[in-house]
Amino acid sequence: MYLVKCHRNSRILVDGRAGGLIDARDRGLAYGDGLFETIAVIRGKPSLWQGHMDRLAAGCDRLGLPRPDPHLLRAELAELSRQDTGVAKLILTRGLGQRGYAFPRSTETCRILQFQPDESLPPPLEPIRVKAILCRTTLGLNTALAGLKHLNRLEQVMARREWDDPAIAEGIMADNEGNIIEGSSSNLFLMHAGRLLTPLLDRCGVAGVMRAAVIETAEELGIPVEERRIARDDLLAAQGLFLTNALWGIRLVEYLGETRFDSCPPDPRLLDGVWRKAFGSDT
Amino acid sequence: MYLVKCHRNSRILVDGRAGGLIDARDRGLAYGDGLFETIAVIRGKPSLWQGHMDRLAAGCDRLGLPRPDPHLLRAELAELSRQDTGVAKLILTRGLGQRGYAFPRSTETCRILQFQPDESLPPPLEPIRVKAILCRTTLGLNTALAGLKHLNRLEQVMARREWDDPAIAEGIMADNEGNIIEGSSSNLFLMHAGRLLTPLLDRCGVAGVMRAAVIETAEELGIPVEERRIARDDLLAAQGLFLTNALWGIRLVEYLGETRFDSCPPDPRLLDGVWRKAFGSDT
Repeated sequence: MYLVKCHRNSRILVDGRAGGLIDARDRGLAYGDGLFETIAVIRGKPSLWQGHMDRLAAGCDRLGLPRPDPHLLRAELAELSRQDTGVAKLILTRGLGQRGYAFPRSTETCRILQFQPDESLPPPLEPIRVKAILCRTTLGLNTALAGLKHLNRLEQVMARREWDDPAIAEGIMADNEGNIIEGSSSNLFLMHAGRLLTPLLDRCGVAGVMRAAVIETAEELGIPVEERRIARDDLLAAQGLFLTNALWGIRLVEYLGETRFDSCPPDPRLLDGVWRKAFGSDT
Repeated sequence: MYLVKCHRNSRILVDGRAGGLIDARDRGLAYGDGLFETIAVIRGKPSLWQGHMDRLAAGCDRLGLPRPDPHLLRAELAELSRQDTGVAKLILTRGLGQRGYAFPRSTETCRILQFQPDESLPPPLEPIRVKAILCRTTLGLNTALAGLKHLNRLEQVMARREWDDPAIAEGIMADNEGNIIEGSSSNLFLMHAGRLLTPLLDRCGVAGVMRAAVIETAEELGIPVEERRIARDDLLAAQGLFLTNALWGIRLVEYLGETRFDSCPPDPRLLDGVWRKAFGSDT
């Protein structure tokens, strides 16, 4: 049975308490009314912590959720992760509500923190090369929700269903007007004539913290970065593509479907700078 | 604290067992990866049962979920509702998954059935007249998910946030191209020269079971019904508007913002036929 599977040793805190159960009436389940963060943890230290907390706070403001206390979250993460390396997932929901979409009169959020050991972290400094495909599943446009890492992720679930081949690392998604936006669980950069291009996320997409780290590092190094609309043709005309997320760091796209991208690695200073920002022990 | 609030007497079954808790790692919470139905129950009898089961099965097929057994659901509903009148809510999720959007290798869904007594049901045969507004929050387009009553409902949550005045019964939403689609928790019909018009739900929106009952009844009565794109101007030019959902039956829109719709009730045969189909004791 379903509930029997809740493994007793799972490292999950719900509102700070050990356990792995939530109220079946939670609005996070009913409507996807909440946000999440997926955080790499290296020997107990959360990667890009400030970036995750900034995005969470911005998401709370957009959804009208009270912001959680970052110090409390950090303490809970330390309790769960101990000094281990792995992946922390934080979910913040609007908690219990009355029937219907209207906000509850007083919001008491529900905060779920999970930790799963993963010794494959951190990713290598020298980016791995992967195969990606273009997905048919598209992203709907909604400026009010664009950029947020909210709990409405059926489009990504449907996109991920398009391939089963373990050799394919990612599927690239377009919006329903055909603009290239991101991978199903990563952001996308194009390398073009010494510049970096990345899709504008003003109408859909998730503004990843690793994406922000790449943009920030590029700006520090004087490498031009442009956020703009990207057409499918732009993708194929790029000298190189790479994908980013909180766990992968940077991954180079070697094949997009049948199209091979010649080895055109990003500037080594960028790779080094992003890696140290995200996974370095000195930060 | 949050979990303490799970009231012990709540009428909730999770996979057929009494209780009100689910696994915090459920994909319904993580991604909104699932479906729901909201069902009026009159003295133990679920309204439009076949319509709800048909939509649920169609949703399962689209999302790649195993269909639940309707006989099992009906038995669980009888156990929960006894002979009472109220609202049943069924949530079906893809259950537990590994990390990431990929489907679990074997899907064991999670089924949550709640019942809440509500003596205001059934709605009156003579429709009540309500005030509605036009929402600024729009619906994104996604043909793969259009029509489904899935758990990704942040757009509706954001729309419902646009008003607080209890005199306003509903907010009408357009898609991001400006086509009028539906209410935040209801479907919409326009009356125009003896015909019924209702928005096409091929690119977004929820295909309600009460909407289907209205269409079916109109067809039985020889009243022309057309599903098509509806512009904002069509809305204002209509002779009358009405809203439908599983709990309301039919509600007439008397005011849309400041615009008053003259009393132009639907054909009494339609009102009578829909009400009997949904709430009559002889069906």
